[in-house]
Amino acid sequence: MYKGAVSLIPIEVEFPDIVLKAVGSRQKDMVTRGERGVEVRKNESFSLASYLEEKRLIVESALDSSLVIGNPAKIYEAMRYSLLAGGKRLRPILCLATCELMGGSLEMALPTACALEMIHTMSLIHDDLPAMDNDDYRRGKLTNHKVFGEDIAILAGDGLLAYAFEYVATQTRNVPPVQILEVIASLGRTVGAAGLVGGQVLDLESEGKPDISAETLGFIHTQKTGALLETSVVSGAVLAGAKGEDIAKLARYAQNIGLAFQIIDDVLDITATKEELGKTAGKDLQAQKATYPSLWGIEGSRQQAQQLIDSAIGELSSYDEAAEPLRAIAEYIVNRKN
Amino acid sequence: MYKGAVSLIPIEVEFPDIVLKAVGSRQKDMVTRGERGVEVRKNESFSLASYLEEKRLIVESALDSSLVIGNPAKIYEAMRYSLLAGGKRLRPILCLATCELMGGSLEMALPTACALEMIHTMSLIHDDLPAMDNDDYRRGKLTNHKVFGEDIAILAGDGLLAYAFEYVATQTRNVPPVQILEVIASLGRTVGAAGLVGGQVLDLESEGKPDISAETLGFIHTQKTGALLETSVVSGAVLAGAKGEDIAKLARYAQNIGLAFQIIDDVLDITATKEELGKTAGKDLQAQKATYPSLWGIEGSRQQAQQLIDSAIGELSSYDEAAEPLRAIAEYIVNRKN
Repeated sequence: MYKGAVSLIPIEVEFPDIVLKAVGSRQKDMVTRGERGVEVRKNESFSLASYLEEKRLIVESALDSSLVIGNPAKIYEAMRYSLLAGGKRLRPILCLATCELMGGSLEMALPTACALEMIHTMSLIHDDLPAMDNDDYRRGKLTNHKVFGEDIAILAGDGLLAYAFEYVATQTRNVPPVQILEVIASLGRTVGAAGLVGGQVLDLESEGKPDISAETLGFIHTQKTGALLETSVVSGAVLAGAKGEDIAKLARYAQNIGLAFQIIDDVLDITATKEELGKTAGKDLQAQKATYPSLWGIEGSRQQAQQLIDSAIGELSSYDEAAEPLRAIAEYIVNRKN
Repeated sequence: MYKGAVSLIPIEVEFPDIVLKAVGSRQKDMVTRGERGVEVRKNESFSLASYLEEKRLIVESALDSSLVIGNPAKIYEAMRYSLLAGGKRLRPILCLATCELMGGSLEMALPTACALEMIHTMSLIHDDLPAMDNDDYRRGKLTNHKVFGEDIAILAGDGLLAYAFEYVATQTRNVPPVQILEVIASLGRTVGAAGLVGGQVLDLESEGKPDISAETLGFIHTQKTGALLETSVVSGAVLAGAKGEDIAKLARYAQNIGLAFQIIDDVLDITATKEELGKTAGKDLQAQKATYPSLWGIEGSRQQAQQLIDSAIGELSSYDEAAEPLRAIAEYIVNRKN
């Protein structure tokens, strides 16, 4: 009954098989034996829905407190309007998941997780502008410029982008500064001309050109969607101190789910309704954009996506139950409805 | 005649008075005695024109090699078009000057100096957009969106902003990572809602309101112009390892020259021609913006600016000849023609 009782019984005796499978070397320093036992039992009946909901609530709360209204209020309101407009929070959750998988804590990754969502939100605000994709709806709400005007929407994007870097630099705790700098460098590269920005330029150029090859399409999406997903996955691992082969495996996992994500996005643009998507449906056809369904058909696209997901999960084979969230997220990407 | 000759003669014997004045404690570790002697003689006949030209060429060359054309070429060309459009390069030069004043090397500050110019350029590209100030000319050339279109101009700004952070994080050498993180945090704060972005929102809101108070006007300009000048000055010092009172003095120097800079900008908007400014003149009157000349008249504004410059120079009283560049830059701000 006294507090130290559990540690008197070696946990390996209590759950010999499960513990053997669950002792990922990277968790060794972070979790006590007793806690690890509990973790294992949870993993055995892993529920992605509960996992995503639990992490999403943590991210929502962190995002909400990351940005308080200052002066001039209008710009903070515009930034908060889009940052707190819901969404799956997939990028921050991937960052938290890999940080924990590599033996880091939630707290180490949370500022970067928020920064990833600030960057993602900024790219959505700017992509929706009249001079770009000219979209009226996003995440089921009016787009930023429809509510606050184009000038404020441009500035809200700029503000979120700048704040993402400030936030990682000032709020990250218990991580060596060199690793924080590495994450900041990746975030910068991911947004810039070699990432989101370059991908959006290629995407704009591909409008009215439905005859683009699968290779070019892959290049566009690697920059526009893949790069940020990869940085989400890898930055969590970097913060936890992961190196070499672990980083390489996680990067390949991310590249595969990133491309699958985009293929399914293209499929959903055709098959889903505006209500399911929370944004205008059928935009690609309207803009005469090359898409994966236009190359491979809807069923062929789904099959390609499933193959990519299988490869992604294959990269995680050395990680046992601790990688269950990453496996389940990969499966979720092909099965999602929005 | 042989190379070591100079060091055989104690420099204090050669130039006893001058050396006594020139031995700033913060230069002790960086410059050899002989070099310091030379430095002093140069300072005695300090030429701001040569100093600015020398540093400007270093900055131009660093900016040119910071950004090579990648794929898609169009976005890199748009970023380079505005980044290499000339200009005084005052912000990078201030950063280099304070880093050297505080005993740091040019190399330590050069990546941050470039980043400051990337950020400044990004803010000009976005401020010039039709949805904002709608300007056709900047630095004597067509504005970015007039050449590349609005969509590319928005993305070029985003790309430059992201790259500024990446560049500091990856290119800074011989500076402890904690100081690099401090600089990144300041850069982020300076661009965001508490800096450039917030200042631009207030500036847009002040259009058509010529009755704004000197206090509100000061607040707008502190965010819009002052913050980036202050970060330019302070970041150079932080990179060199400066602390406490040195940082505080340099910050006050920067705040004073920042406000003087803006007052003179307002004066020049009335008194200078488009050719002198390299951008459209008379914009403030046209937009019915409150300006310092509208509050204090042209002569009164010049006097206020001169007082601020005197205060700025007063902050440098403990720094002897090594601070000559900062003093001369302050004087230049009130006497410039564009």
